[in-house]
Amino acid sequence: MELKAKIVGIIGGMGPLATIDLYSKIIKHTNAKNDQENLHVVIDSYAQIPDRTKYLKGEGENPLPYLLESANNLKKGFNIDVYCMPCNTAHYFINELRKNIDKPFISIVEAAFNEIKRYHFTKLGILATDGTLLGKVYHDFFEKNGVKIENFDENTQSLIMKAIYDVKANSINSGIEAFNKALSNIVKNKFDLLIAACTEIPILIPYKQEHIQIIDATDCLAKNVVKFCRE
Amino acid sequence: MELKAKIVGIIGGMGPLATIDLYSKIIKHTNAKNDQENLHVVIDSYAQIPDRTKYLKGEGENPLPYLLESANNLKKGFNIDVYCMPCNTAHYFINELRKNIDKPFISIVEAAFNEIKRYHFTKLGILATDGTLLGKVYHDFFEKNGVKIENFDENTQSLIMKAIYDVKANSINSGIEAFNKALSNIVKNKFDLLIAACTEIPILIPYKQEHIQIIDATDCLAKNVVKFCRE
Repeated sequence: MELKAKIVGIIGGMGPLATIDLYSKIIKHTNAKNDQENLHVVIDSYAQIPDRTKYLKGEGENPLPYLLESANNLKKGFNIDVYCMPCNTAHYFINELRKNIDKPFISIVEAAFNEIKRYHFTKLGILATDGTLLGKVYHDFFEKNGVKIENFDENTQSLIMKAIYDVKANSINSGIEAFNKALSNIVKNKFDLLIAACTEIPILIPYKQEHIQIIDATDCLAKNVVKFCRE
Repeated sequence: MELKAKIVGIIGGMGPLATIDLYSKIIKHTNAKNDQENLHVVIDSYAQIPDRTKYLKGEGENPLPYLLESANNLKKGFNIDVYCMPCNTAHYFINELRKNIDKPFISIVEAAFNEIKRYHFTKLGILATDGTLLGKVYHDFFEKNGVKIENFDENTQSLIMKAIYDVKANSINSGIEAFNKALSNIVKNKFDLLIAACTEIPILIPYKQEHIQIIDATDCLAKNVVKFCRE
């Protein structure tokens, strides 16, 4: 019998399309020549996990117990070797999750950080939810590691939030419009590198009308997961 | 607290892209206005399940123990309310699976059968693997229910097999070419209704060059799953 493949556990459903996007990118980076060469991936697409941004704004239920429940259920059913989570805002809870999980947990924030180190830039912004900003999910880790993230003006940020929640509601056309309005402001304000730091944003990137480099944190995470499983 | 959402268990990974295709269609038919309105779906994308067609040709390991392992692991971790499986050939084992699972198991074959009853046709074919044909996965159920499936000639069937295994190997362009060659033969042979009875085929349907109606069994399954969860 062959060496048992590593099993990836995905705490997903935040939202479902973003979960599919991560899994698609894992498949792309695996580049298998038949079904069996792919990774064994178990996805808990637990869409009922309460809204992360609402909680961080003090307006909703705490998602942490749900995230822990998902990790525990994955562990109960499967011999998970490594966890990940296609939701940037939920990474606010990564320390709590890592404390409660006895296996590696690959962070989307750390995956994106490793990627931007290869780029030259003068003004870095992140396309993220209000929750990710409020929770300093990216700001804390990046600044601790010597990289400054600049914030957008309020109007631009509200366009980004609209784009993200439009994707969650399957209103892709309306999301594209808000996304491109936001990007137009961002380019005017001299940003020269962006991170798609919300897992809904990559679904909009194929429709971007401005020439600005956007690093896809979901893609960085997928690459790191495949690399981990192959080592 | 709201009524607990039903939990869907998907025995997947046969192949991974087909698994994503089913989940995308479940999301589309759910048409949620936010993350939380979506179904709770747990996907075991267990790509290591042995090739179903190879087994049915007497050339490979029996996938049944792996299918049962997947169902059992899903059950151990989660309170699954309903199971399904985005692989037509694997439905050869549906009776064994249903015997071993104490919850409903929605069949892709039965979902497709319910759909074709709405159509007028004179010559019905199925775009399926050699395994699905050998195992009479569709033929037995359809004939028992009064619907005859006509077979393609050998050359056409081998083009369909090539198209399917190209998709599994991520060689989409080569798959599209084989698929369209097969369709051209099929139309010449006066078929007027087809069922995409292999979960790789829907990935090729957007590229079809012939005017022939193809019913997507994966889409039928997705609709049935959503309907079950809402009842």
